[in-house]
Amino acid sequence: MTASLGVVTPELIPFETPLTLERGGYLPRYDLMVETYGTLDAHKSNAVLVCHALSGDHHAAGYHESESNKPGWWNHYIGPGKSIDTDRFFVVSLNNLGGCSGSTGPLSINPETGKAYGPSFPEVTVLDWVHAQARLADHLGIEKFAAIVGGSLGGMQALQWSITYPERVGAAAIIAAAPRLTAQNIAFNEVARQAIMRDPNFFDGDYADHDVIPASGVGLARMVGHITYLSDVSMGEKFGRSLPREDRDAEGVNFAVEQYLRYQGEQFSGRFDANTYILMTRALDYFDPTLNESIPLPEVLSTTQCKFLVLSFTTDWRFSPSRSEEIVDALIQAGKPVSYTRLESAHGHDAFLIPDATYERIFKAFMDRVHQDLGGNV
Amino acid sequence: MTASLGVVTPELIPFETPLTLERGGYLPRYDLMVETYGTLDAHKSNAVLVCHALSGDHHAAGYHESESNKPGWWNHYIGPGKSIDTDRFFVVSLNNLGGCSGSTGPLSINPETGKAYGPSFPEVTVLDWVHAQARLADHLGIEKFAAIVGGSLGGMQALQWSITYPERVGAAAIIAAAPRLTAQNIAFNEVARQAIMRDPNFFDGDYADHDVIPASGVGLARMVGHITYLSDVSMGEKFGRSLPREDRDAEGVNFAVEQYLRYQGEQFSGRFDANTYILMTRALDYFDPTLNESIPLPEVLSTTQCKFLVLSFTTDWRFSPSRSEEIVDALIQAGKPVSYTRLESAHGHDAFLIPDATYERIFKAFMDRVHQDLGGNV
Repeated sequence: MTASLGVVTPELIPFETPLTLERGGYLPRYDLMVETYGTLDAHKSNAVLVCHALSGDHHAAGYHESESNKPGWWNHYIGPGKSIDTDRFFVVSLNNLGGCSGSTGPLSINPETGKAYGPSFPEVTVLDWVHAQARLADHLGIEKFAAIVGGSLGGMQALQWSITYPERVGAAAIIAAAPRLTAQNIAFNEVARQAIMRDPNFFDGDYADHDVIPASGVGLARMVGHITYLSDVSMGEKFGRSLPREDRDAEGVNFAVEQYLRYQGEQFSGRFDANTYILMTRALDYFDPTLNESIPLPEVLSTTQCKFLVLSFTTDWRFSPSRSEEIVDALIQAGKPVSYTRLESAHGHDAFLIPDATYERIFKAFMDRVHQDLGGNV
Repeated sequence: MTASLGVVTPELIPFETPLTLERGGYLPRYDLMVETYGTLDAHKSNAVLVCHALSGDHHAAGYHESESNKPGWWNHYIGPGKSIDTDRFFVVSLNNLGGCSGSTGPLSINPETGKAYGPSFPEVTVLDWVHAQARLADHLGIEKFAAIVGGSLGGMQALQWSITYPERVGAAAIIAAAPRLTAQNIAFNEVARQAIMRDPNFFDGDYADHDVIPASGVGLARMVGHITYLSDVSMGEKFGRSLPREDRDAEGVNFAVEQYLRYQGEQFSGRFDANTYILMTRALDYFDPTLNESIPLPEVLSTTQCKFLVLSFTTDWRFSPSRSEEIVDALIQAGKPVSYTRLESAHGHDAFLIPDATYERIFKAFMDRVHQDLGGNV
């Protein structure tokens, strides 16, 4: 039996201690927008950290305001009786630093200037996010997470946690991720960034000063991204070569897939900040725990202390199964406990967000073991 | 022994009879920019038509002005002793209608208005190109081509010829092509078009009236295209995660692959017309000899009379081997003679342009048979 979390309420948590960042910048103070689901047990041992991907946020499960709204981005996998069972776990989800959903980011006021950061927001990395998340754990009194889980860029955060704070992670679920980007991955991110930067309303990131947003460039960036999140198969099944829908604007459009992409781009550009998009893609590009192969991945992972679950999806070509298998191989070489499944899916990279019975069952089985390890009944 | 064709000279050939186009437009007259290599025999039986891809042109082999220049785009496969042996064949290569390399296209003057066509240039399709090429053949006195060959969009023209003018084609070589685009293919083309159309210098295609070109948008379109022409493997081998070259502009660039893509985009935007790019991608999108599956492909191919060579490349994900195999399967079902090879290559879709010993050998063997069928010695 699974049920909905119902209406959930985010909380803005302030951190007044400065944070020095990996790439040289620093934040004098910052806020994190956080949601929690379930109840922290007396030993504070049942906490699960959920890390979001490129365009995600703190709203991972449940509903804001009413159940008629769109649920959180991982609502299918988080809730009472679900894979991440909120009857057992205390789930923590946050908008990462540099985000545009309430946490300190380019849209926030820089306390040192009294003006919004905009493009002057310092570069942040996966490691910086992990440090900020560790401070959030301290604030919540959580010494060790029972599990840290995430898909795509979120999976990279789970991986980084296992390396940086090995004693604070009981288990890590790394879904549809990669140990670092390929040249092709970086190339797609660069096209997305260039789409934004070439929008005349971008003004080198100072669009807020001109009371505009680079909606056209952000929309185009999202169109590129969206193609890489879907598979050739799923796009074929969804659209094929069918004609545009008549109930939507179709000017200059010949095929439904064109109309869909434009619509996706428009929706996204209205809700997502351009400077954040650039910053998030940069964080993806920079992520590389091997420090440009100066340390082999098995050696990097040799100090980890948690159990791992790695999941990939057959038609994911952004982070293909072979990329997940690089992580698995390195963990095996390092003698670490890892379960791995390559899941059949037609949905490409987006599969990590989409309801699927096998994915759900395997994810739940792993989380049930985490619960057992805490001394819980299954 | 292979040698260079040396310096070759294009010729502009006028056609004064109006051409009615598949999608409703027409051209009162037009010019085609044409190159020929080798000598047409007395029976005019040894002609080979070479069809270009999206951004190609008539300059398929040899050099313009001097051998220190860049050779034609298929120079490795066309010339004395090469796969398409100009000691045996009379090779005809042209810039297609709507192009920007001398043939009538958006940059040309519309005789009915006295102004450049610009965005008012009528939509052209692969079928229109084939009709225009047939008129070129008439002009040259060629009743039947010994072979029609092309890669990518060029392969689609060879396929269309075999369907539209079965009695005028002795053999067709269809390389790295597809019987029609998938939704993903169309989606990438749409992103490229949107990149151009969203450039404020595009002016709905009337940029010439404003004395500007939408260089930024065309460059971005080329960046997207370029990623899809290469493979993940070849990009990894060429760039990996290496840093930018210091001898080139690297502002805001973190990885060599970003620098390379921007450079490719800039080079392209200086030489290729935006309206032509849009028109060529539309022609790709429209190509569908099954007329949206109203006629099964084997039935469409049932009236063809030529021998076929179909070639694909293992890492080509723009037109993957399975797409070529759709053509092969349909030809087999239709009982037509077809040779097919899936060539090993790391170079993605671009492989059809790149020197490779196995590709060269198989292509040459097919063309040798064409020569034999004409009564020639091998």
